[in-house]
Amino acid sequence: MTSNSVPKFETLVVSNPREYVYRVELNRPHKLNAMNDVFWREISTCFNGIAEDPNCRVVIVTGAGRLFTAGLDLTDSQILAFTDVQKDVARRAMQVFDVIKKLQESFSFIEKCRKPVIAAIHNGCVGGGVDMVAACDIRLCTEDAWFQVKEVDIGVAADVGTLQRLPKIIGNDSLARELVYTARRLPATEAKQLGLVSRIYKDKASMIEGALELASTIASKSPVAIQGSKVNLVYSRDHSVREALEYMAAWNMSMGQTEDIARAIQANMTKQKTTFSKL
Amino acid sequence: MTSNSVPKFETLVVSNPREYVYRVELNRPHKLNAMNDVFWREISTCFNGIAEDPNCRVVIVTGAGRLFTAGLDLTDSQILAFTDVQKDVARRAMQVFDVIKKLQESFSFIEKCRKPVIAAIHNGCVGGGVDMVAACDIRLCTEDAWFQVKEVDIGVAADVGTLQRLPKIIGNDSLARELVYTARRLPATEAKQLGLVSRIYKDKASMIEGALELASTIASKSPVAIQGSKVNLVYSRDHSVREALEYMAAWNMSMGQTEDIARAIQANMTKQKTTFSKL
Amino acid sequence: MTSNSVPKFETLVVSNPREYVYRVELNRPHKLNAMNDVFWREISTCFNGIAEDPNCRVVIVTGAGRLFTAGLDLTDSQILAFTDVQKDVARRAMQVFDVIKKLQESFSFIEKCRKPVIAAIHNGCVGGGVDMVAACDIRLCTEDAWFQVKEVDIGVAADVGTLQRLPKIIGNDSLARELVYTARRLPATEAKQLGLVSRIYKDKASMIEGALELASTIASKSPVAIQGSKVNLVYSRDHSVREALEYMAAWNMSMGQTEDIARAIQANMTKQKTTFSKL
Amino acid sequence: MTSNSVPKFETLVVSNPREYVYRVELNRPHKLNAMNDVFWREISTCFNGIAEDPNCRVVIVTGAGRLFTAGLDLTDSQILAFTDVQKDVARRAMQVFDVIKKLQESFSFIEKCRKPVIAAIHNGCVGGGVDMVAACDIRLCTEDAWFQVKEVDIGVAADVGTLQRLPKIIGNDSLARELVYTARRLPATEAKQLGLVSRIYKDKASMIEGALELASTIASKSPVAIQGSKVNLVYSRDHSVREALEYMAAWNMSMGQTEDIARAIQANMTKQKTTFSKL
Amino acid sequence: MTSNSVPKFETLVVSNPREYVYRVELNRPHKLNAMNDVFWREISTCFNGIAEDPNCRVVIVTGAGRLFTAGLDLTDSQILAFTDVQKDVARRAMQVFDVIKKLQESFSFIEKCRKPVIAAIHNGCVGGGVDMVAACDIRLCTEDAWFQVKEVDIGVAADVGTLQRLPKIIGNDSLARELVYTARRLPATEAKQLGLVSRIYKDKASMIEGALELASTIASKSPVAIQGSKVNLVYSRDHSVREALEYMAAWNMSMGQTEDIARAIQANMTKQKTTFSKL
Amino acid sequence: MTSNSVPKFETLVVSNPREYVYRVELNRPHKLNAMNDVFWREISTCFNGIAEDPNCRVVIVTGAGRLFTAGLDLTDSQILAFTDVQKDVARRAMQVFDVIKKLQESFSFIEKCRKPVIAAIHNGCVGGGVDMVAACDIRLCTEDAWFQVKEVDIGVAADVGTLQRLPKIIGNDSLARELVYTARRLPATEAKQLGLVSRIYKDKASMIEGALELASTIASKSPVAIQGSKVNLVYSRDHSVREALEYMAAWNMSMGQTEDIARAIQANMTKQKTTFSKL
Repeated sequence: MTSNSVPKFETLVVSNPREYVYRVELNRPHKLNAMNDVFWREISTCFNGIAEDPNCRVVIVTGAGRLFTAGLDLTDSQILAFTDVQKDVARRAMQVFDVIKKLQESFSFIEKCRKPVIAAIHNGCVGGGVDMVAACDIRLCTEDAWFQVKEVDIGVAADVGTLQRLPKIIGNDSLARELVYTARRLPATEAKQLGLVSRIYKDKASMIEGALELASTIASKSPVAIQGSKVNLVYSRDHSVREALEYMAAWNMSMGQTEDIARAIQANMTKQKTTFSKL
Repeated sequence: MTSNSVPKFETLVVSNPREYVYRVELNRPHKLNAMNDVFWREISTCFNGIAEDPNCRVVIVTGAGRLFTAGLDLTDSQILAFTDVQKDVARRAMQVFDVIKKLQESFSFIEKCRKPVIAAIHNGCVGGGVDMVAACDIRLCTEDAWFQVKEVDIGVAADVGTLQRLPKIIGNDSLARELVYTARRLPATEAKQLGLVSRIYKDKASMIEGALELASTIASKSPVAIQGSKVNLVYSRDHSVREALEYMAAWNMSMGQTEDIARAIQANMTKQKTTFSKL
Repeated sequence: MTSNSVPKFETLVVSNPREYVYRVELNRPHKLNAMNDVFWREISTCFNGIAEDPNCRVVIVTGAGRLFTAGLDLTDSQILAFTDVQKDVARRAMQVFDVIKKLQESFSFIEKCRKPVIAAIHNGCVGGGVDMVAACDIRLCTEDAWFQVKEVDIGVAADVGTLQRLPKIIGNDSLARELVYTARRLPATEAKQLGLVSRIYKDKASMIEGALELASTIASKSPVAIQGSKVNLVYSRDHSVREALEYMAAWNMSMGQTEDIARAIQANMTKQKTTFSKL
Repeated sequence: MTSNSVPKFETLVVSNPREYVYRVELNRPHKLNAMNDVFWREISTCFNGIAEDPNCRVVIVTGAGRLFTAGLDLTDSQILAFTDVQKDVARRAMQVFDVIKKLQESFSFIEKCRKPVIAAIHNGCVGGGVDMVAACDIRLCTEDAWFQVKEVDIGVAADVGTLQRLPKIIGNDSLARELVYTARRLPATEAKQLGLVSRIYKDKASMIEGALELASTIASKSPVAIQGSKVNLVYSRDHSVREALEYMAAWNMSMGQTEDIARAIQANMTKQKTTFSKL
Repeated sequence: MTSNSVPKFETLVVSNPREYVYRVELNRPHKLNAMNDVFWREISTCFNGIAEDPNCRVVIVTGAGRLFTAGLDLTDSQILAFTDVQKDVARRAMQVFDVIKKLQESFSFIEKCRKPVIAAIHNGCVGGGVDMVAACDIRLCTEDAWFQVKEVDIGVAADVGTLQRLPKIIGNDSLARELVYTARRLPATEAKQLGLVSRIYKDKASMIEGALELASTIASKSPVAIQGSKVNLVYSRDHSVREALEYMAAWNMSMGQTEDIARAIQANMTKQKTTFSKL
Repeated sequence: MTSNSVPKFETLVVSNPREYVYRVELNRPHKLNAMNDVFWREISTCFNGIAEDPNCRVVIVTGAGRLFTAGLDLTDSQILAFTDVQKDVARRAMQVFDVIKKLQESFSFIEKCRKPVIAAIHNGCVGGGVDMVAACDIRLCTEDAWFQVKEVDIGVAADVGTLQRLPKIIGNDSLARELVYTARRLPATEAKQLGLVSRIYKDKASMIEGALELASTIASKSPVAIQGSKVNLVYSRDHSVREALEYMAAWNMSMGQTEDIARAIQANMTKQKTTFSKL
């Protein structure tokens, strides 16, 4: 794939820095990458496209400018137009419901996309930013990074994924709730101890380098194995072990017949690099 | 609310140390706050009352005297009367079932109460005490604190919540099981590493101070946002991400129309304190 | 029980080093304890037998020779015979499905066995080894231990339990996914921080000693309490808190009538050792 | 039990027409047994009391006067006070939520009560009446009976159980939805075909007689067996077959040790009547 | 809405025969309304559009020409192109998976659309046709109608909804399985007894008339109440009663504040027709 | 396959009356086919064997002698030995649990076997017999057949599947509960109306003939399609529509690549019989 073929967006820049690796950069730096209506639409389109693009096997998400993202754009979002649209509570409620579901779906597409997504976070990751990175597979950050579940400070319970995913990706419910109820900033080191990020880098440049390294390693593996792993990790999170094993067996009924197995074993035994067909 | 209006109990002391903050103190110090039949009844009444009391937005649970609680009062509890009540195994079993369900409910009321509950634990937290704090939102402790899942030492599998909640609030199943199977004491520092508590304080006084500080911060936020967050955090723990997002959207259909949003945003932008109507 | 009465296997050595404690040693050291077809059959038979053997209350799993296990034996396993058995994709798929289900069951028997199982891991624990220890209750390891979710390197998504159990026994989803996607080695200290193991020992000998100590402690407790705890910990992992409390109450309808309660309380109060009937 | 000992209510009349059989009559005939706030409270108290009363093994629910019940009392219910209580949508919503939950619980107590409940319906059974009888075990009716899911006609989706239980107790989803969407009356014969009632009687007198006969038959059986059956039928409706079998086994761990088994088998073999201890 | 404003499709004709009532006609009569790739895309677009169209409150689905639908168009469908696309089983499997999911979604949009959908079936309803009508709310048919779960006759298990929905909308699992395993034709009268359809009409004309009558009745009710009913009926089918009651309460937090309640009660009391705002 | 190759049992007679059709006859006619310990073991072995036998595609279950089965053999079953085995309630309870689970599994193997199982019932089908036929796919009976959920008459709640499966295979919960609570006999015609059986035959001979006809029809279809249908019908019963569609898609990832599709379509178009490879 040439860099010409990657899709173009207004709030996102998609590039192809390494073979099979895409980078999606949040790109409204003058607005601190705040999430406006265009963003929500584009992030859906972007990840739906990536899901079907055989040239992409791993994605890195980064933020342009001073910080990763300031979260919801309060000045440019239909969410805040709720109050004046209609008079009847029920009719307005239906609209609210549909908008929330749409926003939730935007980030769920990151999860449904079978390619691993690595969030590389520098400086602030606020509100909707936490919802977003919680839907990614792996989280890396810089030393100056901080996270803030900001929603209670604008009078709402976080409804785009943080309350649903955050406690399931870390192992400290007490701290998770403290963060949600107080909206305080969580610095990088505490985020690392908490298990929210798995690695801290000195600065953004070295983090991007590290993320690309990690992404390239993953991209060199059998995409059948990698994508099957993501699908089943996500499935397992939401099901009992028994249910998840059942689904896994059904999944590998076909995947266990792939040509990649012979190639991978061969490569593994001969310690030589191999290539896998596109997927 | 005046301090006169808080409810009176035999085994609990309820006070109102800060605006919108209640403190519930386990108060049988001469019995090491052991949980007797009166306690189980009162803890239910207490948290059901708090759930409906608009003067309370956050609760702190503490223990009077030498330690937080020694757990079940073996000398004063219907649970241990099981053996001689009746002859038929099945009829006795029905009674056991009903008693266990009632005890379980006592602590589940802490969870169902939409107001965040902070457990501030000093010295020993034994048996039923672990069941109890596992049902709280946030856990703080003193340096001299220790936790003990004591139940196997009295010949029973812990049936009031520890086995059900403990592994879900920490991220180390291996250690959780070790604690359950051995009934060994877990010291404060290990509890912190394990994620069972989110903060350790030098002594009880400074812990209470810290807990009040934290509680006041939470109490200053929109109660619509805070209570919605707790409801959905609890819901999310027990459901798939998809199910939990669905419920969240239904919840915010109405909550997303609250006047608190405008007030909170205004306060946030102007950096001024705001007040929210009672809830 | 005399050592004569413990069962004999080709790929496993079962012994009875302490009262009520069994040790199951993976025993194909010349093959690095790689898992072949005989192994899968024997591990099922072994744990089904242990489940019904009243002389066993706790199990320790160890590996003979240089490392714990190298995982699947690629040179001696029906799994890899998939490719040439039949022509029709669907018919082959049915076979694959049945084989995977059978392997999954082998390790699920460890979980279904009501006696706690302690994995004591030295040196390498690779591929199927991670699937296996994830199904154990407690994980200990040596300083030189390392873990490797190897499956993507042979072109498949891990389908014998790692994807299903690993993220539920630790509290760092970001790191778990990194390990799965990269197949990199996880050293002992990182495994400890991650919560994958609960204790690190200097070498194999001291680990075995520690494991036996731990096992003996557990074996000295009421088996009614211990087994009920394991059953309900496993049940709780896969159910909502409410569901799990309901099952717990049904379980203790009968267990709460055991003679062990009186004995355990008596022993606890008099600080004297007691014995419990076999189970 | 003497008739003196049955509880007294304002909107219900409880009697004890046969040994171990209670009759609960909806008793606001001048208001067509419309459900007011007192009713909702009393139905909870009544069935909670019955649940613990060893003199009751089966319950019959009937309606006094012209018809079974006209459903919600629009002129005397807090539900309709929703609109004017407070200004903020979110705060009002919280109240609505709590009221609905309370009403739902009132009927769920019928289901949680382990004694079978037979609804004997004559003439109209409207709105809340359908919610109520759907929570009963067995439904009988007279030839002149009719059912009406009335809620859409007052502008709300039925929220006290009809939408949740009705489709699960009959086998015709197409007709169920038609009834819900149109609020049309369903006559007795169609109700019988639909499986909503299992028997039609000529008139109220013969229906009561039939209900008492049926109730007495059930009351003559082992209460351990009957109550265990109800518990597990309700559990099974809401769980997979596997889950329900698991719970059943846990339930019968104790129930399978009852003295009733020997008595019942003996009675069955000798064709003689036996008596069972109270439960 | 004028008839000009209804959307235009190639395989469907959408019209607006009564106020708030839309009719969607399968319109490839020369191909027996067989479902080709265009159809799958259009049915999605159509019902997504209807979901958001305030001029539509109820939908009727009919088939143009000789029969309702012959099901999947074997000569014009990507489903059957599976066999030759790629060589690797796993890569082809991924494609199959994605196509099946897309087809499943097409019919699930009928279910997700909050407006009731009435299927009016004449003559044959084959294969995919059964999948489709099983996703509708209400099923009506003519005397000459017949249903055929045809899939086993083309060598596949029905994967677009029949196996998932059919047994849940009728009450005869034995017959449902017979139909699936034999692919025999089910005539109208048996379909009525089975509960698959709720009404039989002499011919297509009278059925359409009946369907319009029914649709108009539903369209005259509060759309807040109707749509809330559909949402919760669908939710209840897939959840336990407790879960469904919980969701219902959350739903009616806002819906219970609608202006429609006052209007509907007023209309009901005065026996006068009322109008409700669009939704 | 020759008749010599079918397995031999003590309580069952297995034969091969038509190509790909097996008949399993309960064969203790002098004991009214009562279920003793040998039976429970053999029924497991039998259906596990059938599951793997490529010569069998459909099974018919019949009863030898006067009636289908009298249910549990009270004079020859370990179940009733519960009372005297051990003294401690908990230890006895563990045994009871394990025995119940084993019996439950015996019938669950009928369900797990991917080949459709047709129960052909004449005269009495009592107690365990109802548990058994409820686990079959299709139920046929003679005019003189009757069903009896007998368990309450021996003092226990039915614990081998009736309470779990019966209400899910019919559509009349009111009648199902009446049958369970009263242990009354259900005659054939009522069983047909109830949907418990899908067809009534004049006598046993004509029923067997009809069952063989039905079985042969099913056996002539693609076994990939038939077995996939059964697997997914069973899965769907126990899951939400969404979950079941997800599993279906995973299943057909591989099954949708079968050669049977081309063969079946070809046969269907040319109206000629085809043969399918064994499975």
